[in-house]
Amino acid sequence: MTLRLDDLQNGYHLWQDPEGFCFGIDAVLLAHYTQLRKHDRVLDMGCGNGIIPVLLTRYAPEDVHVTGLEIQDGAFALAQKNVVHNKLEDRITIRQGDLKTAGTTFGDGAFHVVTCNPPYWKKGSGYVSDGSALAIARHEILCDLEDVITSAAKVLKSKGRFFMIHSPERIPEMIRHMAKCHLEMKTMRLIHPYADKAPTMVLIGAVKGGNPGLKVEKPLVVYEPDGTYTPEVLAIYGKDGQNEKN
Amino acid sequence: MTLRLDDLQNGYHLWQDPEGFCFGIDAVLLAHYTQLRKHDRVLDMGCGNGIIPVLLTRYAPEDVHVTGLEIQDGAFALAQKNVVHNKLEDRITIRQGDLKTAGTTFGDGAFHVVTCNPPYWKKGSGYVSDGSALAIARHEILCDLEDVITSAAKVLKSKGRFFMIHSPERIPEMIRHMAKCHLEMKTMRLIHPYADKAPTMVLIGAVKGGNPGLKVEKPLVVYEPDGTYTPEVLAIYGKDGQNEKN
Repeated sequence: MTLRLDDLQNGYHLWQDPEGFCFGIDAVLLAHYTQLRKHDRVLDMGCGNGIIPVLLTRYAPEDVHVTGLEIQDGAFALAQKNVVHNKLEDRITIRQGDLKTAGTTFGDGAFHVVTCNPPYWKKGSGYVSDGSALAIARHEILCDLEDVITSAAKVLKSKGRFFMIHSPERIPEMIRHMAKCHLEMKTMRLIHPYADKAPTMVLIGAVKGGNPGLKVEKPLVVYEPDGTYTPEVLAIYGKDGQNEKN
Repeated sequence: MTLRLDDLQNGYHLWQDPEGFCFGIDAVLLAHYTQLRKHDRVLDMGCGNGIIPVLLTRYAPEDVHVTGLEIQDGAFALAQKNVVHNKLEDRITIRQGDLKTAGTTFGDGAFHVVTCNPPYWKKGSGYVSDGSALAIARHEILCDLEDVITSAAKVLKSKGRFFMIHSPERIPEMIRHMAKCHLEMKTMRLIHPYADKAPTMVLIGAVKGGNPGLKVEKPLVVYEPDGTYTPEVLAIYGKDGQNEKN
């Protein structure tokens, strides 16, 4: 495979396979949405080429450690390569394995935080559902929403936090699966392509053993009416005036 | 009590008790959000002074019949007065009773559509929680979210539709209670005071026995940045240019 080296505009670079699943705005938004605290041990389930672990280290306090778990050979190798390329070996560990058995791999309650950018669509729905890396990233071929939520709850400590990005279509299913494993949705931010359009993605934060009470945040709007990125999205990408001055 | 006669700007008028609970924008938005079809029999649970039944008849096909159910003496009498004042006796019936026993009052599967603008806040939370009509309208003193959802599911036919307005804080609780009685949330519209502020209310539509899959709609914004109503809200209130010309 021929790899491409992309500049993340924040001091880091990422090797991607242009024929596989390249990271999109969802990974960037999820990493930015994830709130990390000192000493957190973090698991990114289904880390792909490692984009989320790499971005998380940008925002995290220095002693935070991120483990990336990836089942597919190609993505796993790429994630390892990206950790080394960015000299993040001390802060990120990449493990090959199935998120469905994360509980036995890492032990119950091993993490303070779990992040996941899972496939959004049910197996068989939509366009692609072959066994390609691209199909696996987008469709529930190797794992489904319930697997993701069940495993996240298993490896989280009590009061541990779970951050995920997904399709708004599946909010009720999310909440029902969470109820079975004592995850309480505490924050939700809908992502709208334009301010006056329906949301196409949703960021959620949940707490293991949290009390009921959801804070739905202000909309996150991606584009201005003229098709350019909004100031908020530019700032998340690190391309705001503030960062340019530094 | 001294009553006040308010002009609904749509040919109807409403007697309200200024010392009780007067209808707000939530009732207007819920009535507008409710999709009615020919021959629908509709139950508005906790109809207060009858604002929702009266507004529903404005949008509904002529053969739709709305029953308003209200437990409190004062509001029940007022709702009856408002039906007569607007000459809607053929289209609206007001019944006094407890929504918690609506299943036995009306029979299982008696309605195609249920609407409800219930109290948003848990008993004891917030400012008021005495036994006044105002407190009962705002706090879960006589019924809670689970009562509302359970009763709605009981009196709805299979594939019957449930429309409610509530606080976004309680979306996860809503979905969990719905799961217990086979109501599936199918549409959601968040109501934002301003485009860049968090939503303060949510409109939902659910279907009894519906399949999973939620459509989160575009935001409903109440105010322009200068504090005037947005064109959409003006149109809902019937004060848009289109209506003025008629």
